[in-house]
Amino acid sequence: MTVGKVYLVGAGPGDPDLITVRGLRALREADCILYDRLAPHELLSEARPDAEQIDVGKVSFRAQQKMTQDEINALIIEKAQAGQVVVRLKGGDPFVFGRGGEEALACRAAGIPFVVIPGVTSAIAAPAYAGIPVTQRGLVTAFTVFAGHEDPSKPDSTTDFAALAGIAKMGTLVLLMGLINLPALIEQLIAAGLDPNMPAACIENGTLAAQRVVSGTVRDLPKLAADFKPPAATIIGQVVTLRDALDWFV
Amino acid sequence: MTVGKVYLVGAGPGDPDLITVRGLRALREADCILYDRLAPHELLSEARPDAEQIDVGKVSFRAQQKMTQDEINALIIEKAQAGQVVVRLKGGDPFVFGRGGEEALACRAAGIPFVVIPGVTSAIAAPAYAGIPVTQRGLVTAFTVFAGHEDPSKPDSTTDFAALAGIAKMGTLVLLMGLINLPALIEQLIAAGLDPNMPAACIENGTLAAQRVVSGTVRDLPKLAADFKPPAATIIGQVVTLRDALDWFV
Repeated sequence: MTVGKVYLVGAGPGDPDLITVRGLRALREADCILYDRLAPHELLSEARPDAEQIDVGKVSFRAQQKMTQDEINALIIEKAQAGQVVVRLKGGDPFVFGRGGEEALACRAAGIPFVVIPGVTSAIAAPAYAGIPVTQRGLVTAFTVFAGHEDPSKPDSTTDFAALAGIAKMGTLVLLMGLINLPALIEQLIAAGLDPNMPAACIENGTLAAQRVVSGTVRDLPKLAADFKPPAATIIGQVVTLRDALDWFV
Repeated sequence: MTVGKVYLVGAGPGDPDLITVRGLRALREADCILYDRLAPHELLSEARPDAEQIDVGKVSFRAQQKMTQDEINALIIEKAQAGQVVVRLKGGDPFVFGRGGEEALACRAAGIPFVVIPGVTSAIAAPAYAGIPVTQRGLVTAFTVFAGHEDPSKPDSTTDFAALAGIAKMGTLVLLMGLINLPALIEQLIAAGLDPNMPAACIENGTLAAQRVVSGTVRDLPKLAADFKPPAATIIGQVVTLRDALDWFV
């Protein structure tokens, strides 16, 4: 049997129309689509009627828990080895905290041809839909995106809060997957030197009709966003002040 | 006369198929398209046959030099005030060093309705097409994108090289628009503490058929990329070592 092919597709930040033309084409070609809760489910209606659709964010068929990354990798390879064109549909961009690199390495190790199709990341698009540009001439010359799913109080935490507080003086900070740990993360950033009065915003369901935004100082943000649920993006920096002028979605 | 509308559209990093579905739809609706050299020109064939197309990267019609940002802003507003649907087509994402924030503020000041349509940024997609993920579990938990068009030896340079060198310990650095100043920028980063043996790559014409990639240590990069021309993206960090495994475009 001829081996298939794997497309690792960035589905964009939530608004289904923010998928790329190339990503949509791969989706329409697929024999099998592996998706999870972060990819816009409306996009599945673009698949061929006979395409198999597998929710890999649901409980595993082998055990009563979510599929592990290893199980997802194995499933991608199993389907491709059966000759199928496989689309792994991922929220945002496959290489921005998307574990696309691990899936690509697994394909490579199994000798499966694969293609990465980048996507619009929520790190940039969620603030944009909230009227906040991640860069602005005269204000910032850099932006840093970091992941906050790691508990910052864990002794093996690899997050360098001093480095993040340092970079916040020249650039915008964007935190993804940091809602649950938000109070602890902000406490650590302030302890490392971040100005507690720096403007900050939190965006729930960015780019979707259900998008909600709160903004204030970084110190007050955990309180302001107390009832937010994932997915959420947090943005810290002077660019947040532009929101009042650019709130065209409100 | 009814006022028109402005779409600030991110055209993506170069590969014309990396525009979003939403961006393409706006392009097909437009009465007037303002573009420059960084937006993929193939996309102009998607415009209505009667749409006006203006290259705002060319010499100004008022003087023998490139249009200034103020002139571009004024032209956007003039066309929209004449009732047109205007697309400002920009390379990458409008808010990633794209001056989209300035154009949005100009629209706002003139009372012109505007919409920002995010795009795939070359900061993520150019490395991806070169087999380099900007993040990888177990290697980095952050990435920083900074612009290098400012001469770093200028006394009013706002780039904080110590902060960048600090963040490079936990995350990937991506430099856009930094080719001309690359030797000086790397010298400053190393002087500020960046490991001169850190893996690094430079990507010319990222995501295009004409893409070229060089990689080595950050110290050797200016020499390796000596004959590169803009547009180019430079990526510094351990993720560059994944290129050998993920070079599926080579």
